[in-house]
Amino acid sequence: MTTAPASPGAHTRPDARLADARQVHPAHERVSVPGSRPDLQVPRLRVHLTNGEAFDRYTTAGPGSDPAVGLPPLRAAWVRERGDDAAHDAGRPVTQMHHARAGRITPEMEFVALREDCEPELVRAEVAAGRAVIPLNVRHPEAEPMVVGRRFLVKVNANIGTSAVTSGVEEEVEKLTWAVTWGADTVMDLSTGRRIRETREAVLRNSPVPIGTVPVYEALEKVGGDAAKLSWEVFRDTVVEQAEQGVDYVTVHAGVLRAHVPLAAHRVTGIVSRGGSIMAGWSMAHARENFAYEHFDELCELLAAYDVTISLGDGLRPGSVADANDAAQLAELRTLAELTTRAWEHDVQVMVEGPGHVPLDLVEENVRLQQEWCHGAPFYTLGPLATDVAPGYDHITSAIGAATIGMHGTAMLCYVTPKEHLGLPDRDDVKTGVVTYKLAAHAADVAKGHPGARAWDDALSRARYDFRWHDQFALSIDPPTAQAMHDETLPAEAAKTAEFCSMCGPRFCSMRISREVTDLVLQRDAHAPGPVAAEGREPAPGPRPSA
Amino acid sequence: MTTAPASPGAHTRPDARLADARQVHPAHERVSVPGSRPDLQVPRLRVHLTNGEAFDRYTTAGPGSDPAVGLPPLRAAWVRERGDDAAHDAGRPVTQMHHARAGRITPEMEFVALREDCEPELVRAEVAAGRAVIPLNVRHPEAEPMVVGRRFLVKVNANIGTSAVTSGVEEEVEKLTWAVTWGADTVMDLSTGRRIRETREAVLRNSPVPIGTVPVYEALEKVGGDAAKLSWEVFRDTVVEQAEQGVDYVTVHAGVLRAHVPLAAHRVTGIVSRGGSIMAGWSMAHARENFAYEHFDELCELLAAYDVTISLGDGLRPGSVADANDAAQLAELRTLAELTTRAWEHDVQVMVEGPGHVPLDLVEENVRLQQEWCHGAPFYTLGPLATDVAPGYDHITSAIGAATIGMHGTAMLCYVTPKEHLGLPDRDDVKTGVVTYKLAAHAADVAKGHPGARAWDDALSRARYDFRWHDQFALSIDPPTAQAMHDETLPAEAAKTAEFCSMCGPRFCSMRISREVTDLVLQRDAHAPGPVAAEGREPAPGPRPSA
Repeated sequence: MTTAPASPGAHTRPDARLADARQVHPAHERVSVPGSRPDLQVPRLRVHLTNGEAFDRYTTAGPGSDPAVGLPPLRAAWVRERGDDAAHDAGRPVTQMHHARAGRITPEMEFVALREDCEPELVRAEVAAGRAVIPLNVRHPEAEPMVVGRRFLVKVNANIGTSAVTSGVEEEVEKLTWAVTWGADTVMDLSTGRRIRETREAVLRNSPVPIGTVPVYEALEKVGGDAAKLSWEVFRDTVVEQAEQGVDYVTVHAGVLRAHVPLAAHRVTGIVSRGGSIMAGWSMAHARENFAYEHFDELCELLAAYDVTISLGDGLRPGSVADANDAAQLAELRTLAELTTRAWEHDVQVMVEGPGHVPLDLVEENVRLQQEWCHGAPFYTLGPLATDVAPGYDHITSAIGAATIGMHGTAMLCYVTPKEHLGLPDRDDVKTGVVTYKLAAHAADVAKGHPGARAWDDALSRARYDFRWHDQFALSIDPPTAQAMHDETLPAEAAKTAEFCSMCGPRFCSMRISREVTDLVLQRDAHAPGPVAAEGREPAPGPRPSA
Repeated sequence: MTTAPASPGAHTRPDARLADARQVHPAHERVSVPGSRPDLQVPRLRVHLTNGEAFDRYTTAGPGSDPAVGLPPLRAAWVRERGDDAAHDAGRPVTQMHHARAGRITPEMEFVALREDCEPELVRAEVAAGRAVIPLNVRHPEAEPMVVGRRFLVKVNANIGTSAVTSGVEEEVEKLTWAVTWGADTVMDLSTGRRIRETREAVLRNSPVPIGTVPVYEALEKVGGDAAKLSWEVFRDTVVEQAEQGVDYVTVHAGVLRAHVPLAAHRVTGIVSRGGSIMAGWSMAHARENFAYEHFDELCELLAAYDVTISLGDGLRPGSVADANDAAQLAELRTLAELTTRAWEHDVQVMVEGPGHVPLDLVEENVRLQQEWCHGAPFYTLGPLATDVAPGYDHITSAIGAATIGMHGTAMLCYVTPKEHLGLPDRDDVKTGVVTYKLAAHAADVAKGHPGARAWDDALSRARYDFRWHDQFALSIDPPTAQAMHDETLPAEAAKTAEFCSMCGPRFCSMRISREVTDLVLQRDAHAPGPVAAEGREPAPGPRPSA
């Protein structure tokens, strides 16, 4: 995020190395930034450069726990000190929003401010206003606090989870760790199939990032997979069980109203949200209103007692560019806006989910309407995919939409892997999805002019221009991949300081020639009298006498 | 591009199958659309669907020639009939712009109009106005006419070429064929190193798409790699030799004026264009103005006699987001605008090249200024990359910028492969680059509302919603990849008609549930009296009695 000297600065302590079983480059070091209390240590990734400088980046310290033991309960003391750990018995709100509205800066807010390089008061104010969320269940003390909001770095969510057809518990924990290693800021466990609860327990205890779920998936398993057999009671009990386990945020499709469903009947791709189709199915089967909508206040009371953030699912999101920004989608968004306000009355933190498949010219309207109607509540979008024609490349079709919607103010991007529409992502797909979304989120941060965002680009570009190849690899978003691609044609160590690569060869390297040219210019400027030096700054065609 | 019935339509002749050694899916058929003369046959890719329908797409017929023989000289008769083949001796302009301005619709313009599904007069008018180019050297009769202009489909260029460090002639022809198979609309042969001329000859004789070059690369080889030894004469002779061989467009960095160079001296990454750095190096070494600028009118006369399109190189494009839209870049663009007008005075077709590395918020300004200053001459951009931090993923960082700049009016996108900044792309990189750029170009077409563009998305999405898996693969931008990803978890043939995939499993497939739900709605609508059917169209919260 910021360039720091290699020697310890005011805010960093390089000797406080954090556990790091997942180092992706030898020049990477995990350091921590101490906060106002001894148990508040904020992780940073320090990249040591060959020119003696160093560059610090936002990171998550946690990955690499022993799955049998889990991660240490980082936040347990903070929660206990506030008495928030027992509040679910008293029914008292324990949410970060509750504390923020009361004017309190919690350790979680301070942690987040140190991560984001901003004032704790900004974090408090944004959370109090509902424009940002810190999704942290009091029962998930292993999680490192992070913030989702348009004033902060754009975040990336990775989906993992078993399905009835494939994948097991160990594999999901491995995917979680892998996703976090590459920079996932939150992870959703979307397991269906058997062993949902067991998978989630393993994921939570090993997760240093907030974990989200879609509780209706587990509720549906409980009733044998028949949406018509669902009920508010089954759903509520599932939410409580998940909250007890420590789930940090839940997607609830409370905005799929009965009256909205017919609006989707004539779409090219109908209802493509799993949760949305389940709720619509229930609603149509019973000819009754969505039970999550009907019992929304009761749901909020439950969530407030654990600080489970609600993510208002967009069950009617478009599943094809043809269906983008249509009546069904916008009718649901209006309802989500109403539910946002109702959740805030209970001090429940809220995110609002967004599409989906959207042609690039309609992307901005999505975030503009959402921010306007939902009073600035953080927008959390899936892509969106800018075209439907590229299955196998939907991490790219969606990164195009994601960078654009992020630039316009979306706070968190849900990744899409190359397997989207085709099958359950494996470990490689998870990495590709996360890295692709991290670069899209960073492109959005740069485009927004987020303070300090461009420093990373500049550090890498300076290394590139100086032919510091090892620094270029170390600074890149995926060092082993960058180095492996360079090694393919020039594996020798000598090539790692050479003033060219195999793309153009030594004779044609523009950057080598450019440095010679600009050196000439700079020498001339240094020796020339004022007017001649200034002359070069203005375009002035035509030959001139030699200086 | 358009949905066509499987039976022969008014404009198509499915029995006229074209040579097709590169069929990427069994349901693909190359058909041709006949024009006004027997030797005018425009290729189309027909995708036969399992529901009896068919979908036609824009394609290039050519790839798959025998490298020893080359492709047939498709346009030889057209050129001969006009007497354009001998004009370079008379110094008479033979350009498509010349004919267009004289009010003539050439067979090339008609060919292009049939490919693009538009009126030939639109093509003529756009070429005459300089808003579109048909890059076709009279000496490259193997090429299938195509058009570059903002009123037409966004095109994709792929770069191939040897470097001094790696790659051979056969490998480059193979890369050419591979690039065209996946949809490259033009190819630039950027060979440096030895055997430049031999490589180019093999590429031209086997290329069904226009071939571009950067002549200063070969000129520099002729003078032993020392930019200071270059001269207008060496450069001019090289251009004439390449024009004689059949090169369709040449990038010339005539806009890198001596006075612009100092503007780049304080950049993060200086001059990153090879041609730009060579011209700046020459200019600084001799303290003289850029020789291509000085001799620009003479250059245009040469190009006009072969109909070589000039692509005005952006030698001062930004090589990092820090340098985007800076004084050096914009000073050069002003010069390119001046050169555009001068080239048009010679009836030379013109494209203007653009960046490079540009943060997403500055992308639109690039195309807006270029279109304004250069009087609508087609913009041809490299990416742009939206961030510098992801070497190894620069096909993606740049596809983000490319889709955006395409949406705003860029006519052709120069691809970037995953190897950008790291090494010379191999065959796999070429495919990844082309497919990525084709999806970005299509996303731009959809966002622009280009007539018929979205039909492809709709056809694929309908196949997806109907669980016609084989149709989804056949319609996708890369059928073998889509099918291989599906096969990874569900290889059995039965899975190719199953109403689910491994992502969610059978119980949770939203599209299956959605179809059940919407069927219910549609049945209810069909049986209900008017007011009840209408009621569903308005959002109306709250439970209702069962219908």
